[in-house]
Amino acid sequence: MVYSIESYGCNYEGDVVVLLMLLWNCAECKHPHPCDPLTPSELSFVRTKVQNSYPNQNLTFHYVTLDEPNKPEILSWQSSNPKTKAKAVSPPPRRASVIVRLQKQSLEITVDLSTGSIVSTKVYQGHGYPMLTLGEIGVVTQLPFNYEPFKESLRKRGLNISQVRCGAFTMGWFGETKTKRSVKVKCQYRNDTANFYARPIEGVAAVVDLDDMKIIGYNDRYVVPVPKAEGTEYRASKLKPPFGPNLKGITVTQDAQPGFTIDAHSVSWANWVFHVGFDIRAGPIISLASIYDLQKQKYRPVLYKGFISELFVPYQDPTEEWYYATIFDTSEYGFGQFMSSLQPLTDCPPNAAFLDAYYAGSDGIPVKIANAFCIFEKYAGDIMWRHTETEIPNEVINEVRSDVSLVVRTVSTVANYDYITDWEFKPSGSIKLVV
Amino acid sequence: MVYSIESYGCNYEGDVVVLLMLLWNCAECKHPHPCDPLTPSELSFVRTKVQNSYPNQNLTFHYVTLDEPNKPEILSWQSSNPKTKAKAVSPPPRRASVIVRLQKQSLEITVDLSTGSIVSTKVYQGHGYPMLTLGEIGVVTQLPFNYEPFKESLRKRGLNISQVRCGAFTMGWFGETKTKRSVKVKCQYRNDTANFYARPIEGVAAVVDLDDMKIIGYNDRYVVPVPKAEGTEYRASKLKPPFGPNLKGITVTQDAQPGFTIDAHSVSWANWVFHVGFDIRAGPIISLASIYDLQKQKYRPVLYKGFISELFVPYQDPTEEWYYATIFDTSEYGFGQFMSSLQPLTDCPPNAAFLDAYYAGSDGIPVKIANAFCIFEKYAGDIMWRHTETEIPNEVINEVRSDVSLVVRTVSTVANYDYITDWEFKPSGSIKLVV
Repeated sequence: MVYSIESYGCNYEGDVVVLLMLLWNCAECKHPHPCDPLTPSELSFVRTKVQNSYPNQNLTFHYVTLDEPNKPEILSWQSSNPKTKAKAVSPPPRRASVIVRLQKQSLEITVDLSTGSIVSTKVYQGHGYPMLTLGEIGVVTQLPFNYEPFKESLRKRGLNISQVRCGAFTMGWFGETKTKRSVKVKCQYRNDTANFYARPIEGVAAVVDLDDMKIIGYNDRYVVPVPKAEGTEYRASKLKPPFGPNLKGITVTQDAQPGFTIDAHSVSWANWVFHVGFDIRAGPIISLASIYDLQKQKYRPVLYKGFISELFVPYQDPTEEWYYATIFDTSEYGFGQFMSSLQPLTDCPPNAAFLDAYYAGSDGIPVKIANAFCIFEKYAGDIMWRHTETEIPNEVINEVRSDVSLVVRTVSTVANYDYITDWEFKPSGSIKLVV
Repeated sequence: MVYSIESYGCNYEGDVVVLLMLLWNCAECKHPHPCDPLTPSELSFVRTKVQNSYPNQNLTFHYVTLDEPNKPEILSWQSSNPKTKAKAVSPPPRRASVIVRLQKQSLEITVDLSTGSIVSTKVYQGHGYPMLTLGEIGVVTQLPFNYEPFKESLRKRGLNISQVRCGAFTMGWFGETKTKRSVKVKCQYRNDTANFYARPIEGVAAVVDLDDMKIIGYNDRYVVPVPKAEGTEYRASKLKPPFGPNLKGITVTQDAQPGFTIDAHSVSWANWVFHVGFDIRAGPIISLASIYDLQKQKYRPVLYKGFISELFVPYQDPTEEWYYATIFDTSEYGFGQFMSSLQPLTDCPPNAAFLDAYYAGSDGIPVKIANAFCIFEKYAGDIMWRHTETEIPNEVINEVRSDVSLVVRTVSTVANYDYITDWEFKPSGSIKLVV
């Protein structure tokens, strides 16, 4: 993961008058589309505003995202001037929606990016907690290494502590009326394999209070051997013969320019137009997908907003160390936060274009995911429609239309799960979402 | 459809001694695989043998195909010498299985291609009849044009007879103990469209006895307008603006040689070997598909024989003209007989290889379907397997394996139905069949 702060030509330093003027420039002129995700500059601005509201206090940012204008506003903006809307009509004012953790409370804050003011602050009173951040996962999973009972557990098993790696597991909710914001920490053994998920140190689990960042419970219930490293390696460079099939170089090429255009986050291709957004929790968001109706000579809305609302991973193993593994990979870990930088030529074909994504780390600083999205025309050699007709006198008809579609791809890698999310747009008007 | 008789270097003319010697050459040396479909020479030989058995009689060939050796024989041949079997071990003797129609009877004949003798002849006594042939469909569908009541029906509707086209519809079986081999003939109107299927001349149907090749029943029940031609045209060259999306040139390329090899009808690719056969009724047949087991260092059989056994099209419309439309597109019309010549670059991607197919026409003469099969490596820019690992110290792992598979494609066009049949082989060991 590369940390980077990029300026989009905006400068939030200086006095308030300058700030407001520049904000007007940035928030509206530079954002032709009201669904555009927060830029690094906007994320930084939100951080400064929120931190300044709680000086010298230890707060963590769990969720910073675009506070999307409501549907009537967006539709009104969209319909106001369909041909020239980007220039002629300003989008609705931009706002950010923020969840921070402060003094064991979750605060929901709305920041108006047009005026630079905090519009509202609310203490969340309901069940549940905000998403884990990569920052706190990093801290939590180091705690066992300075915890004597854990070191003793490793010694008892004869494991080399330098080869141990720990992960944070959310704990589910089983109807308790009062809960702490806590996770369980369980560990695995590397030692001669990259595939440490195949080598769990079973029987051992710590409970960590995330607000106090302390181990508040520990269990070493039983000792079983760690599974062997042998046969678990998956890195091609480390594998020894015999090798699997050698797939000879085959690729997708496009002699002409790509058939799609990307303007900021707006994509148009064939008879489709749509917007590609991003959220640290949901990952990719497709908005305002419309298809051109040849008969009516106008775009018809097909999808207002689409995203993965949740990905639930219930292990359904009743044992002490696994019963609570009822993981929400989207809302507990973040399909956006865990998006991987896509590898050109393998994660996506050679004709792909890439988009970056930015989210706020737990310290509020923008984090860049380079090549977070790829967009490409997909052609697998398949047929969209065909007909052979031999019953017309003096003519044999062979009409074949190739099956080409447009794919927006992201990969969210949550621990050992790599979720490939493909939004596929077909000229027929269908949208196919595959995870 | 192109008619052509090709010689595979065999010559069945001449006296019996020469014949047998040449047959030995052709049937065994030239056919390394016992599942290879009958060659044009073999089809011609079968025709001569069968016709010579019924001199001066009017017989029609409805089904001529390889009489495949039984499974133990094939498996024994396959296992006898896995490395050099093509040269070292002769396959079992080749036989042809034939169904002819003669004097209103269906004869099942077996011809031994090794000895050149007719092994058995049986009169079929059960329900049902052999497949329609393209030859008889051609004759049947012309009968109405010389049938006065039909001409009167067209006049009554004001239709131009030169723009009328008729089709043969099998009649189903509704429990009758005695049936004739007959079809119904219904017609459509072209006049300004290639899409005559959209313009049925409803209310009119003839019944034709296929053995006597005569209209034995006729019905003109009601007159309704033929649907308009407007908006039914599908030929790209005939369409007028506005046009649908313009999909810019995108293609699949392979710099290296293809990853597969085709030896006669045997295909090997990646960790797969299999045989591609052909039958006038079933169309494509995949046999002896085996995958190489890296651990055991040998091929493991996955599929002994796979083909589309039937494709049933019940219209479920209770009206007089449609209730009997309970069509078996495979066994009544022939998924093989109706296979279309595949169009390079559209039906199949540029990296495809093609195979021809041959069947016996109703006169027994071999008919060639050029480019009946295409075989290609399929790559859609998809991911077979991936993992990103950021939890190894001083290393970020991005391992991505591209999803490449091998496809054997055929298209069977039965009237207005174009069935694309893809047998897809994946390196993972799975076989995916999609129609």
